[in-house]
Amino acid sequence: MNAKKLMVSVIGGHKCDEEATKLAEEVGRIIAEVGAVLLTGGLGGIMEAASRGAKEADGLVVGILPGEDKNEANEFVDIVIPTGMGYSRNTLVAGSADVVVALPGEYGTLSEIAFALNAKKRVYSLGSWDIPGVKKLKAAKELVEALSKYIREREGEAC
Amino acid sequence: MNAKKLMVSVIGGHKCDEEATKLAEEVGRIIAEVGAVLLTGGLGGIMEAASRGAKEADGLVVGILPGEDKNEANEFVDIVIPTGMGYSRNTLVAGSADVVVALPGEYGTLSEIAFALNAKKRVYSLGSWDIPGVKKLKAAKELVEALSKYIREREGEAC
Amino acid sequence: MNAKKLMVSVIGGHKCDEEATKLAEEVGRIIAEVGAVLLTGGLGGIMEAASRGAKEADGLVVGILPGEDKNEANEFVDIVIPTGMGYSRNTLVAGSADVVVALPGEYGTLSEIAFALNAKKRVYSLGSWDIPGVKKLKAAKELVEALSKYIREREGEAC
Amino acid sequence: MNAKKLMVSVIGGHKCDEEATKLAEEVGRIIAEVGAVLLTGGLGGIMEAASRGAKEADGLVVGILPGEDKNEANEFVDIVIPTGMGYSRNTLVAGSADVVVALPGEYGTLSEIAFALNAKKRVYSLGSWDIPGVKKLKAAKELVEALSKYIREREGEAC
Repeated sequence: MNAKKLMVSVIGGHKCDEEATKLAEEVGRIIAEVGAVLLTGGLGGIMEAASRGAKEADGLVVGILPGEDKNEANEFVDIVIPTGMGYSRNTLVAGSADVVVALPGEYGTLSEIAFALNAKKRVYSLGSWDIPGVKKLKAAKELVEALSKYIREREGEAC
Repeated sequence: MNAKKLMVSVIGGHKCDEEATKLAEEVGRIIAEVGAVLLTGGLGGIMEAASRGAKEADGLVVGILPGEDKNEANEFVDIVIPTGMGYSRNTLVAGSADVVVALPGEYGTLSEIAFALNAKKRVYSLGSWDIPGVKKLKAAKELVEALSKYIREREGEAC
Repeated sequence: MNAKKLMVSVIGGHKCDEEATKLAEEVGRIIAEVGAVLLTGGLGGIMEAASRGAKEADGLVVGILPGEDKNEANEFVDIVIPTGMGYSRNTLVAGSADVVVALPGEYGTLSEIAFALNAKKRVYSLGSWDIPGVKKLKAAKELVEALSKYIREREGEAC
Repeated sequence: MNAKKLMVSVIGGHKCDEEATKLAEEVGRIIAEVGAVLLTGGLGGIMEAASRGAKEADGLVVGILPGEDKNEANEFVDIVIPTGMGYSRNTLVAGSADVVVALPGEYGTLSEIAFALNAKKRVYSLGSWDIPGVKKLKAAKELVEALSKYIREREGEAC
């Protein structure tokens, strides 16, 4: 038996404009549709929009909160992990993912990208920080093929 | 919408005898049957036995690992959170639960009980450390009523 | 060269009566007098009293705070480590010590004792939780000999 | 009374060439000479060179280790904090500093810069990552004036 599910983190700012919100929803939906679990920091902005998208596609959503109160999670989170660790929880959002998708965000998002690259995770960017090692995508739909390919490779390894 | 699922942690030793193993499996099964998510430290012993029990009842299992490698998780964990935080991850296993069930264990288990009580969580013991504030149970089946009652109270609050 | 200093943690409650305050001050003073660095959780109560005692004897005091704001530290802390990690910082207070001295306290103190024992640290108790593995002392002055002996053993190892 | 000492973190790679080593030593020496405590991640490379420099100027050195074993610290660390938290300890190295000095390094260094900027710390760079918000210096000796000015401002605030 191997119950382990593929986990994809979506990282990005607490505040986001309409365009980034739509993008995050689409990314969340794609993650659910390829059968992966969505992981975010559990709060508002990009995190909430991606979670809404994943729930629309009947996905499972994990939120790793900075605070200690589960009620701080947005309403689309199934599994709430309230760490009480403040920004140190960013290392868990990056470290628990198999793949990270970075959307526009500020220094918190940059710290997650850096942690993910440091841990040799695959990081895709949709309009986020331009750091060597990050794979830039032009549109959310490119993620469908990228994630599907990742899943096939992973299943190949398991054989 | 409120996607948030009830989470019950099972804590206990890495090593356990046959009796404790059976107990842990039964506890894991009960947690899944009442509709809660099982949360453990993700490794062997009590953690693995409870996870096996939960999967037998089609439950969802979250494992919060001390190390950075997802492959350290036992095979029954669906959602693996590899923290790389060592024993500090015990605070997450205790803090993310709505209810904690303590089985026999050593100092690591004691630290989780202490954290859970400190965070004002409900802690049930089945043969674990005898600390003031912990509710002692005589048999796993008493958990069925205890958890069901907790769920009813929680739903009452939500109305 | 080996600059590494002996570190002794004093753990205990945020609130404490006059007797416990005097005891904590005496313990802090002893730790400074034997030449060790005092380590605490950096806040009030037992932590502040021990720090005051250490500074009276010209000791060095490290405080590992739960919050992110250095100003939360009591005025006797030289080296402030603001973790922003909440109660998870307890694992650092216990884990960074060579020796732990437990004074009266509640579940937070119990969690630190459990972590210290789990990490195979020497733990002395002066009226704190009675857990197997903890060495009970009757008076603070017994610490003078206990710590001096520990230091001699440690220097012996280094030769 | 206010025992709190100014703390300056030096961050940078585990491996470093001769030029970066000399630079790190000079930075460590300057930090000690202006009367601040040096804080690093406690290991080799830039961290060790800066610590050596600080000890040459009779400074105090704090090392916040990723592992649980105090013996992993380089020989110039006075106060060893073995976190057992892996790369999550980077948030403590950045968050405990009043000022951060970034030298050449890889993704771990980038994560520390991001955390420091996120926490609104002043970050100086000597040949490190070029991120908006970081103040670039051309030579280590510019730090003397920068840190002295910071200390005067801070003392002004305290009056």
